[in-house]
Amino acid sequence: MKENKYDDFSFFEQYGKMSRSQKGLDAAGEWHVLKGMLPDFKEKKVLDLGCGYGWHCRYAIEKGAKSVVGIDLSEKMLQKAKKINQLDGIIYKRMALEDVQFTPEIFDVIFSSLTFHYIQSYDMLIGNIYQWLKAGGRFVFSVEHPVFTSKDSQDWVYDAAGNKSHWAVDSYFFEGERNTLFLGERVLKYHRTVGTYLNVLLKKGFKIVEVKEPVPSDEMLKNIPEMKDELRRPMMLLISTEK
Amino acid sequence: MKENKYDDFSFFEQYGKMSRSQKGLDAAGEWHVLKGMLPDFKEKKVLDLGCGYGWHCRYAIEKGAKSVVGIDLSEKMLQKAKKINQLDGIIYKRMALEDVQFTPEIFDVIFSSLTFHYIQSYDMLIGNIYQWLKAGGRFVFSVEHPVFTSKDSQDWVYDAAGNKSHWAVDSYFFEGERNTLFLGERVLKYHRTVGTYLNVLLKKGFKIVEVKEPVPSDEMLKNIPEMKDELRRPMMLLISTEK
Repeated sequence: MKENKYDDFSFFEQYGKMSRSQKGLDAAGEWHVLKGMLPDFKEKKVLDLGCGYGWHCRYAIEKGAKSVVGIDLSEKMLQKAKKINQLDGIIYKRMALEDVQFTPEIFDVIFSSLTFHYIQSYDMLIGNIYQWLKAGGRFVFSVEHPVFTSKDSQDWVYDAAGNKSHWAVDSYFFEGERNTLFLGERVLKYHRTVGTYLNVLLKKGFKIVEVKEPVPSDEMLKNIPEMKDELRRPMMLLISTEK
Repeated sequence: MKENKYDDFSFFEQYGKMSRSQKGLDAAGEWHVLKGMLPDFKEKKVLDLGCGYGWHCRYAIEKGAKSVVGIDLSEKMLQKAKKINQLDGIIYKRMALEDVQFTPEIFDVIFSSLTFHYIQSYDMLIGNIYQWLKAGGRFVFSVEHPVFTSKDSQDWVYDAAGNKSHWAVDSYFFEGERNTLFLGERVLKYHRTVGTYLNVLLKKGFKIVEVKEPVPSDEMLKNIPEMKDELRRPMMLLISTEK
């Protein structure tokens, strides 16, 4: 339910070794796409749900945001955020996203990166986010793609020679828990369909602005050989909306 | 480009044997979902792109449409449509969708069922459809799902015992031609991503109303054993929009 794998010592250690953890946004394969979907931050009040190390909070402030609230369930993540990404205007709070409460219409921008596939109650959370946003406010988020999360084993199918043969999809319409392996540890995720991700937004009243399935930048494709496999199946779904 | 497999004799014969061809809309697994996404047809001017046997044209007239133009490239399909679904108010026209021309803002509803994955120029066609629709008009269509069309071999992966092991996704971001096998014949289709299907609509000015990945009805799941495999991967994408 409110699992917080990021406070496991070995998992946190592994996560800390990932390029996106150490080097920040530019090391994340989807950032060059996600960046283009973000609204103007100038003088905006921003909320980041699942802020992790706080890289996006820093980015918002650097782009002129008036204030940023960064929320995460992991104490270790927030300790690190406070150490490396504590700027004036950022408040970090430890809390499960399901327990977050704000008065209505107080944020201009709500953002979430790769967090909602850990959350069971997507429907409730989207309803809350709609309330917290001002009219005309923007809500932008990324999740692992339903093609990526449909099976427990979120991995390629390999041929006899050990090459990646293809990506397996199964149980697509059985939404709910997936016991996956991430960075060598068991992690509980929640699978839902593309239809669910979009229709819950539409039903709550959001207008869809953009839907992107990012591919690595040309530079990454050139410099990191295994990145070309990212062209074989979608790994992330990025959605930009407006209230 | 403007391939018209439906005028091949053996393909047309095979297609005619499909339950959806013989029995009309209720025999199509997605109809119970698609039906709920259609707007009110009363007194509306309707266009059906890729009308086939004309079952949707008949439905629109029965629901009160003032007029329906049904367009298809296949002469055999249209002959059949004129034979079994010719009602007052329906005009059937033989034409490639790429060649269709209308004056701006003359239709209230534009519809297309399982046709655009045969069309190379989706971008151009969506631009045209936007022009042909009146302000506030509705555009609803279905296509084979990008998860379904990513590989040339649009089939399950089977295990050694001959059971369906999973569905294979590959080459997802390589949009374009797929040489597929459908009803025992080679058929040229065009694969594009979920992102492309949605973003072209948004860029042309459409508002997304609903996005559904249909599953068979409970009745079908009960009565047709192999239908349960339809819960393992998405086969169709249904999109409802408004100008």
